[in-house]
Amino acid sequence: MNRRLRMGMVGGGQGAFIGAVHRLAARLDDCYELVAGALSSDPTRAAASAAELRLDPTRSYGDYRDMARAEAARADGIDVVAIVTPNHLHAPVATAFLEAGIHVICDKPLAVSLAEGQALAALARRKQRLFALTHTYSGYPMVRHARELIARGELGDIRYVHVEYLQDWLASPVEQSGNKQAGWRTDPALAGPAGCLGDIGTHAWQLAAFVTGLTPSELAADVHTFVPGRRVDDHVQAMLRYANGARGLLVASQIASGEENALNLRVHGTRAGLRFSQESPNELWFTPQGGETTRLTRGRIDSPAAAHATRIPPGHPEGYLEAFAQLYRDAALQIVAQQTNTPAPPESLMLTTVDDGVAGLRFIEAMLESQARQGAWVGV
Amino acid sequence: MNRRLRMGMVGGGQGAFIGAVHRLAARLDDCYELVAGALSSDPTRAAASAAELRLDPTRSYGDYRDMARAEAARADGIDVVAIVTPNHLHAPVATAFLEAGIHVICDKPLAVSLAEGQALAALARRKQRLFALTHTYSGYPMVRHARELIARGELGDIRYVHVEYLQDWLASPVEQSGNKQAGWRTDPALAGPAGCLGDIGTHAWQLAAFVTGLTPSELAADVHTFVPGRRVDDHVQAMLRYANGARGLLVASQIASGEENALNLRVHGTRAGLRFSQESPNELWFTPQGGETTRLTRGRIDSPAAAHATRIPPGHPEGYLEAFAQLYRDAALQIVAQQTNTPAPPESLMLTTVDDGVAGLRFIEAMLESQARQGAWVGV
Amino acid sequence: MNRRLRMGMVGGGQGAFIGAVHRLAARLDDCYELVAGALSSDPTRAAASAAELRLDPTRSYGDYRDMARAEAARADGIDVVAIVTPNHLHAPVATAFLEAGIHVICDKPLAVSLAEGQALAALARRKQRLFALTHTYSGYPMVRHARELIARGELGDIRYVHVEYLQDWLASPVEQSGNKQAGWRTDPALAGPAGCLGDIGTHAWQLAAFVTGLTPSELAADVHTFVPGRRVDDHVQAMLRYANGARGLLVASQIASGEENALNLRVHGTRAGLRFSQESPNELWFTPQGGETTRLTRGRIDSPAAAHATRIPPGHPEGYLEAFAQLYRDAALQIVAQQTNTPAPPESLMLTTVDDGVAGLRFIEAMLESQARQGAWVGV
Amino acid sequence: MNRRLRMGMVGGGQGAFIGAVHRLAARLDDCYELVAGALSSDPTRAAASAAELRLDPTRSYGDYRDMARAEAARADGIDVVAIVTPNHLHAPVATAFLEAGIHVICDKPLAVSLAEGQALAALARRKQRLFALTHTYSGYPMVRHARELIARGELGDIRYVHVEYLQDWLASPVEQSGNKQAGWRTDPALAGPAGCLGDIGTHAWQLAAFVTGLTPSELAADVHTFVPGRRVDDHVQAMLRYANGARGLLVASQIASGEENALNLRVHGTRAGLRFSQESPNELWFTPQGGETTRLTRGRIDSPAAAHATRIPPGHPEGYLEAFAQLYRDAALQIVAQQTNTPAPPESLMLTTVDDGVAGLRFIEAMLESQARQGAWVGV
Repeated sequence: MNRRLRMGMVGGGQGAFIGAVHRLAARLDDCYELVAGALSSDPTRAAASAAELRLDPTRSYGDYRDMARAEAARADGIDVVAIVTPNHLHAPVATAFLEAGIHVICDKPLAVSLAEGQALAALARRKQRLFALTHTYSGYPMVRHARELIARGELGDIRYVHVEYLQDWLASPVEQSGNKQAGWRTDPALAGPAGCLGDIGTHAWQLAAFVTGLTPSELAADVHTFVPGRRVDDHVQAMLRYANGARGLLVASQIASGEENALNLRVHGTRAGLRFSQESPNELWFTPQGGETTRLTRGRIDSPAAAHATRIPPGHPEGYLEAFAQLYRDAALQIVAQQTNTPAPPESLMLTTVDDGVAGLRFIEAMLESQARQGAWVGV
Repeated sequence: MNRRLRMGMVGGGQGAFIGAVHRLAARLDDCYELVAGALSSDPTRAAASAAELRLDPTRSYGDYRDMARAEAARADGIDVVAIVTPNHLHAPVATAFLEAGIHVICDKPLAVSLAEGQALAALARRKQRLFALTHTYSGYPMVRHARELIARGELGDIRYVHVEYLQDWLASPVEQSGNKQAGWRTDPALAGPAGCLGDIGTHAWQLAAFVTGLTPSELAADVHTFVPGRRVDDHVQAMLRYANGARGLLVASQIASGEENALNLRVHGTRAGLRFSQESPNELWFTPQGGETTRLTRGRIDSPAAAHATRIPPGHPEGYLEAFAQLYRDAALQIVAQQTNTPAPPESLMLTTVDDGVAGLRFIEAMLESQARQGAWVGV
Repeated sequence: MNRRLRMGMVGGGQGAFIGAVHRLAARLDDCYELVAGALSSDPTRAAASAAELRLDPTRSYGDYRDMARAEAARADGIDVVAIVTPNHLHAPVATAFLEAGIHVICDKPLAVSLAEGQALAALARRKQRLFALTHTYSGYPMVRHARELIARGELGDIRYVHVEYLQDWLASPVEQSGNKQAGWRTDPALAGPAGCLGDIGTHAWQLAAFVTGLTPSELAADVHTFVPGRRVDDHVQAMLRYANGARGLLVASQIASGEENALNLRVHGTRAGLRFSQESPNELWFTPQGGETTRLTRGRIDSPAAAHATRIPPGHPEGYLEAFAQLYRDAALQIVAQQTNTPAPPESLMLTTVDDGVAGLRFIEAMLESQARQGAWVGV
Repeated sequence: MNRRLRMGMVGGGQGAFIGAVHRLAARLDDCYELVAGALSSDPTRAAASAAELRLDPTRSYGDYRDMARAEAARADGIDVVAIVTPNHLHAPVATAFLEAGIHVICDKPLAVSLAEGQALAALARRKQRLFALTHTYSGYPMVRHARELIARGELGDIRYVHVEYLQDWLASPVEQSGNKQAGWRTDPALAGPAGCLGDIGTHAWQLAAFVTGLTPSELAADVHTFVPGRRVDDHVQAMLRYANGARGLLVASQIASGEENALNLRVHGTRAGLRFSQESPNELWFTPQGGETTRLTRGRIDSPAAAHATRIPPGHPEGYLEAFAQLYRDAALQIVAQQTNTPAPPESLMLTTVDDGVAGLRFIEAMLESQARQGAWVGV
């Protein structure tokens, strides 16, 4: 790349967690420079945050609509905006920037309703702008390799998919004692109607779909809230059925005492099975039917998809930030390809987009519908 | 013990798998001597098997009914019979020996219908005879310790239970190519209407109930057969609900390519979580809410239940056969206690019995009922 | 086998640890019956122990010499004696029984000096009697498979061997507070001049030699005692050199806080590497040079040596007692072969014998010599 | 920090591996901007590399001496230089920049002789400039926490230290077939007299010293070359003795087939033991004497040292690049502290410096001296 892409950010002011992660991810592979922001809805905090990030004060905006307009009008305006606000603002902010012709990288979940999400997908398509959605875990080399293995038939026909995402940080009512993260994530007005379901359930759903290349056709759900006084779900589980007859189980829980961030996937096909655990992301376990289990490691295997998403030799662990950075790198590759009218590297097309977001919202709707119907099987 | 208990066996002739395991388990702690048998319904094979096992030929019977009668009549008749026939014979054989006043140790599942099982339980109670059911996995020291931890409140209120039992040996139609084990286990006439469900699903159900001390009150099931031409299920899964509001997932699969005998349990409560994997039975993972994970090991922890079920120091692995032997040891302790009119050691009371068998048959019925009703939630 | 072998035991009376393990191991595969014993040098304890083991009182001896003589004279005398006394008695007891023409199964170490051990080896050869030495860890199926892999060249030329045996039970002076095991094992009069070195260092040495098929030609040692007041070493380490240029490291420690029974082996050759950990004995890790690591498991691999030493299917863990029992089974197979003048199964020849014991004593001598010479390299 | 530090780089042009890692590490926490370079001794490659990195062409130098002079003379000259040349240039380059009053961050090993290294240490002290040495592995949060645990006495007195660093990438003579990395690292003229010893042996030595706070007082070495035709060692091992009586083993091998980057440390004290494996850097295993093993994880434990070196919550793996970046961050904190005459955060003082480099060279000298004296024990 001849130049770094110019990036703006909406949200992510002082005290925010995920904004800092996005900036780090953008920085890691040196494809972006942050030049503008509407970092907070509180003007004082917005200005202080901008100063800390060494932004030109004239490009620190109090309102994202102003920012979209102003940046679109500049010759050196931003190429892309990163959206890291609470969930309920994702759609309005993304809409403003897409309308202004600016590419979008948006934190997940995409939106707080399926209709909202579908409108965004349509808009992105109409405006021909990239709309990346940061489903971080699909940035891991071994997740991409798993997808590749299945795509080329190494597992045969998929029969059983198990995905679980277990955390314990909401096992007690921490939102009632000032935990900011917990506060907005359990407030339906800010996070949408789905709590754990939207926050991590969608990650689980997306990971299974990303790796298998399959979306369940039906599900039967149990959406539950354990912690007294909590206004959103904190534990959800479902049985899954796929069009080819495959079966699946999905569970996402934020009350699973003792678990940190246990996103685990297991896929069994007619020819082989595989296992991936997010907490050990440099390895993938693969077992041919009746054969011996092999530990596949990033960098050691022969895999274009994994190689594309890796920076250092095997045995030198890469982690969550590198997976996140991979999404930013792939977004940059695609934006530059569009700008220069050249093809993007095929491996960069594994980037997750607004379409993954729509799929996630569809999953949420199906879960809530099944729940409303006493756990009946419903189509997705 | 002043003398070894005299044991008979029904089933378990040459070529049988589980009979040899029972004999080994009976031998390990030196509480039994095998003195009689109806080892095969084929007289030639019965005689050859008896000779190989060095039985007195006069105590090798062609029919289990004759054996029950004859042994009951001898002054030195058997104290206890081990039943290791195909499933459909468990109930008639057990009935014959209970009627003759002989204690029973029976392989699982208990019977092929709930009614049959309930009748056995009633009979055992009426005849005041021990009816041990070999749910092997509850013989592991760390499983017993897990039960103890939960019983004394270390996990707080249980919220989420995940149990899975995954194998791959039936991933292809091996029953059609002469595999004897596969043959009878997939034949409804011999194994009952439940395939994988009865064979290993009941183990999963029992393990979760044994450790948590809780039985789900409702379940919603998906009972499936993957392998074309197979006459019983080979993959079952269910969502569970408990009376206290806890949720659970259960899966048992014999088509999970790459898996050997992966019986894994995970329990999360308000105060802590724990994990156990049958393939690494000498350890149990325990994590207090918000705290660090600890690896508890057999022999190193202070646990009467685990100590009772262990023979050698920590770091010297015990395995499946020792767990199996533990059931035999506990049965011997209880039989001798009854014979001598003394109390059995309290730890021996963790032995699984006909009641566990009835619970398992209830589980099978509920699964099949939910399946018949399109996966609706049904009471257990 | 038409009949069980008749076995006697010297040592192993009430309160002894290893005697009970030997009996259990002998029982497991049903090849032996215990019919005679000199179970304790204390006559009261000898008699009580014999009663508990249901021995014919006339075959409970107060002195092992009487026992050897009397049993040799009986038509139904013992075929084989198991020796489970403290170390300093191994040689005199074994000598008495060999002289009487009785096969020997002896706990390790073989003797308390190399000369003593060499004399035993010569005597066993002269009397044409089996002299099995229970190096338990060589009874594990995956250890035997590892040996086979190397023997058939899968690792290429061996370059680096690392073996460690770490325990923590002697990290404090427990022998001073009445621990019986610790007492005799740290008393040079009973255990010989080597403490940790003889007790577990010889296991480490033997395991490396058994698997690689190679014995180091030189070593440089550091033999140390950490615990104040202890009369034998409790931590030993050495660098090794092999005739083919390979290098090795050996460490045995009984003060390695936090370790239970960590006997770990790692072998690297020009073509591949492998790893084994005694605490997870059902698996062996194998990595071809530049390739991916594979988890080989007992029962799933195609290996005559492993199959010979296994009883139950993969995924059903076997452990220490089964490994121990394997030595007894192999001894039985060889004794019966000799009695019936038929060839023993080739896999049974992996049994460890008096020659392994002599090799271990040579190792001890070399370690002590190097230590005496300030850690100089000495020939083995 | 009000501004990013201005950084120059010597070495690290196109095709170099470690230069890119340094730049990424410098970028990750946003404390540096790269503004000048002498990226290659080949002027064409230097210019091309500078363009690729978007350097001002007037600050791309053909010679590091020119660069040191010119940058020292500029008002906006670099604050710090990163040295990523082959080993033999570390000392001359560092000398030039220190003489010019510029802080230094240097890849390891520090120099190719102890005298050279000691001169650098003296010069840095005299010029009062920071001299950071990138011993990456000491940047891991769990390594720092391990150091803290030992420093505050949680392990008691240290008794046994085992450190191993195993790779397999030089198991065959890859330097003879054009592997650039292998080429210079096995060329004594570029890498110095120590091959594996200098490349990874020093890492092992440093890690053990960093965590324990102890340096061995004596060692006995075996320095070996396995691959025919190789001009430097590729496998080294040593026994260690500490002033307090502790024992240790160190091995570094680049021919350990099957190993990627296995830097493993084990420390046992009178009160507890711990284990760390670089390939799983988010965890540390801790076992109190006689107690249960606990898995300590980054972010979940209460540790100022670990918290200082971590960016994201537990369960979100950090890796090698973050550890590397930590060194850059600590260097920045110390440089800014000096520039602003304020105290640096105490946690930043865990940064490894020229003194670690001197210690490493002393280790190399001792290893070579012991080797020259047939493995005799020599003082360090």
